[in-house]
Amino acid sequence: MNQELDILIKDGLILTLEPEAAPIARGYVAISGGIIIGVGSMSDLKEEVRAKKTISADASLVMPGLVNAHTHSPMTVFRGLADDLPLDTWLNEHIFPAEAAHVNEELVYWGTKLAAAEMLLSGTTCVVDGYFLEDHAARAFHEAGLRAVLGQGVIDFPAPGVPDPSKNVAAAREFIERWQGVSDLLTPSVFCHSPYTCSSSTLVSSKELARETGVFLQIHLAETVNEVQQMKSENGLTPTRYLDSLGLLDESTLAVHCIHLDDEEMDLLAERNVPIVVCPESNMKLASGLARLPDMLQRGMRVALGTDGAASNNDLNLFGEIRSAALMHKAASKDPTTLPAAQILMAAVSGGARALNLAGQTGTLTTGCEADIILLDLNHPNLKPMYNPFSHLVYAVSGHEVSTVLVGGKILVENGRLSTMNLDEIMERVRKIAKRVKT
Amino acid sequence: MNQELDILIKDGLILTLEPEAAPIARGYVAISGGIIIGVGSMSDLKEEVRAKKTISADASLVMPGLVNAHTHSPMTVFRGLADDLPLDTWLNEHIFPAEAAHVNEELVYWGTKLAAAEMLLSGTTCVVDGYFLEDHAARAFHEAGLRAVLGQGVIDFPAPGVPDPSKNVAAAREFIERWQGVSDLLTPSVFCHSPYTCSSSTLVSSKELARETGVFLQIHLAETVNEVQQMKSENGLTPTRYLDSLGLLDESTLAVHCIHLDDEEMDLLAERNVPIVVCPESNMKLASGLARLPDMLQRGMRVALGTDGAASNNDLNLFGEIRSAALMHKAASKDPTTLPAAQILMAAVSGGARALNLAGQTGTLTTGCEADIILLDLNHPNLKPMYNPFSHLVYAVSGHEVSTVLVGGKILVENGRLSTMNLDEIMERVRKIAKRVKT
Repeated sequence: MNQELDILIKDGLILTLEPEAAPIARGYVAISGGIIIGVGSMSDLKEEVRAKKTISADASLVMPGLVNAHTHSPMTVFRGLADDLPLDTWLNEHIFPAEAAHVNEELVYWGTKLAAAEMLLSGTTCVVDGYFLEDHAARAFHEAGLRAVLGQGVIDFPAPGVPDPSKNVAAAREFIERWQGVSDLLTPSVFCHSPYTCSSSTLVSSKELARETGVFLQIHLAETVNEVQQMKSENGLTPTRYLDSLGLLDESTLAVHCIHLDDEEMDLLAERNVPIVVCPESNMKLASGLARLPDMLQRGMRVALGTDGAASNNDLNLFGEIRSAALMHKAASKDPTTLPAAQILMAAVSGGARALNLAGQTGTLTTGCEADIILLDLNHPNLKPMYNPFSHLVYAVSGHEVSTVLVGGKILVENGRLSTMNLDEIMERVRKIAKRVKT
Repeated sequence: MNQELDILIKDGLILTLEPEAAPIARGYVAISGGIIIGVGSMSDLKEEVRAKKTISADASLVMPGLVNAHTHSPMTVFRGLADDLPLDTWLNEHIFPAEAAHVNEELVYWGTKLAAAEMLLSGTTCVVDGYFLEDHAARAFHEAGLRAVLGQGVIDFPAPGVPDPSKNVAAAREFIERWQGVSDLLTPSVFCHSPYTCSSSTLVSSKELARETGVFLQIHLAETVNEVQQMKSENGLTPTRYLDSLGLLDESTLAVHCIHLDDEEMDLLAERNVPIVVCPESNMKLASGLARLPDMLQRGMRVALGTDGAASNNDLNLFGEIRSAALMHKAASKDPTTLPAAQILMAAVSGGARALNLAGQTGTLTTGCEADIILLDLNHPNLKPMYNPFSHLVYAVSGHEVSTVLVGGKILVENGRLSTMNLDEIMERVRKIAKRVKT
């Protein structure tokens, strides 16, 4: 660290989220060229170190930004449009009709801007998104500055932007071509809606496209009992075995939900090293079931947490998912030692990054990683006193304590305010779009 | 409303939480002498109405303050001291020793101040507390200005302030005598720890005291499987039947937790009109089980929600309890229509007040009720857009949107800041006390 730093975060309580690492009571993070070039105790910081910008973290906790590994960002526009309904009714009578009538470029763009704002302000720096007209989500994330994996939706029905379903994989190819290499922060991908809404040929073509272009295939998998029954009656195979029979399961297929799995299917997903995304609150709200998160972690499977879209959650606050996962699994297992605070926090953040093949880039405060960092202001009554920061981050934090957010060394939130977006404008635009949805 | 008002809240989105009442899109609440003297649409407000203070609720939701019907406020000092442990280990190896070594007047007072601050800032205006040295909790709540039912702890062991257990009921009597009539906001009560930590004669004497003085008896009931087994082997009766055999079950015994109940016990509690307090997050975190909240509501039982103490939750945010109750019961019943948003919100707030025999005083915005009112700033990204305010209050709100809080017409929070307490001083005092606890 002989050169002048870009940013020095100093005097903070540092949680690197590296394995077994103890919190650093009064530490620093040094950033240059968007990269973390040093983390340690203040007492080890050379006096002559200088930085273009110094962030005082005196009463703050400093940790890696959160990873939200599954959402449909534009659906913020449908937040609270329909709740407390069976999944079928919710989808077929409310969400699908609203999407068919209202999803356009404007909705996707502004809905994503709102999602980006909400996620940044609650500490998420890395997101996996999947929707239609994803170019406009990509544009919004690009402007917002988040790290994002962006999935162009593929479904065998007419969809926003792709009225002819026979062109859905081609549309995904074009999306990938447009966005590969545009930004270090953005990675395009293919998002097949599910095994029951995409034909086998669509699924296989999508996976071929993903392999050819080196991107993720995202897919909803084993979310409901109905899905499992339908797939079994149509193909004689459970959804997971069916995807395996098509050659879809590998380390670059991001399997989302994975609730209804038997032990053999767990083994199969583990063996294929398939990254899994679990969405506790959405699954609870829709009463879809409970993914076997503790089992998955015990098997060493790569698991991330996601909020799912705001139409089924209804917020995009990953701290909430972490807490709900911990509480729900203790209750379900009747064992309060299930998913202790440090384990679920590490699983969600550093584990989330690993699931997305981003370990070494994000998810820990490690020299050489991208500077994806959040600061939480500890001067809130719900965080006093503090015996164990892991406990507070899981059981006591609400998310609004996030005061500063950096992605790739760029400050996106400072003093609790967005620096790259005009929140008032975003909220007003979404309000106007929602007015059309409601009437 | 011919007289000059004390306070006029105007231009807000008003949720009265009266049965079947629709939200008022642009409404007012008029307050005089601490009492709500009018609620309605702005279009019905006479132009000549004048008020000493006008609160603009232009971009705000206005609703009754929340009711937290069970907590141990001083235990904020032990927040996060020990987590992810079986109840026995947690209590016997961590909480009880910490209490024995450290609970004194100072801890109770400052811990309660911190709890009051946290609750007010997240929208709670009415609280039921139970602990030892409760005079000092009462003093703190009195200064803070919350509406509170305060229970002096009774347990058949040496306890802080009551080293001789044979004097525990006498201590409760003295507490009640000291605090009855001191303030319209404060109601003393007796808090028997549980059927397994109080003898039958202690329980009976406590109930006699409660009846004689016209106060609530609070008691933890049927929290764990162990408790049920222990009581059955000692007395041949389940805890609920045991309390009934002692004549303890009536409309003024606040039975807290009530997880392990069979159908007959549910009938018994309903027949006796016993008010119940359910603590979803604490019960999940300690894996104690799941109270049958939807069944209780279906039977028309009086049920309130509580956070429990900060050592087992670990926050005192009632919005979190409301959401967790809704999500957990949908998941457990495998039915997403369980506890729809409006039902759980009404149950927690107006239902909570009814459980505490405070209907007509708090829990609704009704002419003649005390002005216990909160405003939430709707200009937060997680609350945009808004199709249904009930949905947002259950599924999207975090609690930090609370901007203004009134109790009995007195403004305790304004612009998100406490007006009756110095939060920095409270946090610093608690930090110092906690330092002794840790070392």
